[in-house]
Amino acid sequence: MVNPSLIGIIAAFLTTVAFVPQVLRVIQTRDTHAISLWMYLLFSTGLALWLVYGLLLWLWPVIIANSITLFLALIVVYFKIQETLRANS
Amino acid sequence: MVNPSLIGIIAAFLTTVAFVPQVLRVIQTRDTHAISLWMYLLFSTGLALWLVYGLLLWLWPVIIANSITLFLALIVVYFKIQETLRANS
Repeated sequence: MVNPSLIGIIAAFLTTVAFVPQVLRVIQTRDTHAISLWMYLLFSTGLALWLVYGLLLWLWPVIIANSITLFLALIVVYFKIQETLRANS
Repeated sequence: MVNPSLIGIIAAFLTTVAFVPQVLRVIQTRDTHAISLWMYLLFSTGLALWLVYGLLLWLWPVIIANSITLFLALIVVYFKIQETLRANS
């Protein structure tokens, strides 16, 4: 039997940890040229709203997964903005 | 009053459409150098599992949002693999 909750947990884990190699790559290389700032701004806003949703309904998996992903996404946003400012200076 | 469902819908919309500017950027520039292949492989696997989760529990917002995001993420995977193969040839 397939357990939907188990699949959901694995899915949430993967869509969260997926951002770890991206963050490591950006920190190591300082290269964010191919990365879309708009993507990360929209994505981070969406994650922040998922976090609000989780807090309102007190859904702890939603709160935990989206807090971690938001933290990771904001690191990418930080390096992308740094690069954009450098390019414009 | 804050409606949690409305916040969830806006959150799902933003985390899905976020990938549109990234896909457009990759198609236009063919540049995927700063993008982590591991991120998109893990993320796509996670989205596929979210899709299975949505299909098992017949949650149509989960099915729709994750189908679209998976489609967009796989376009980035395609271009990233193309670039990786080019770089290794």
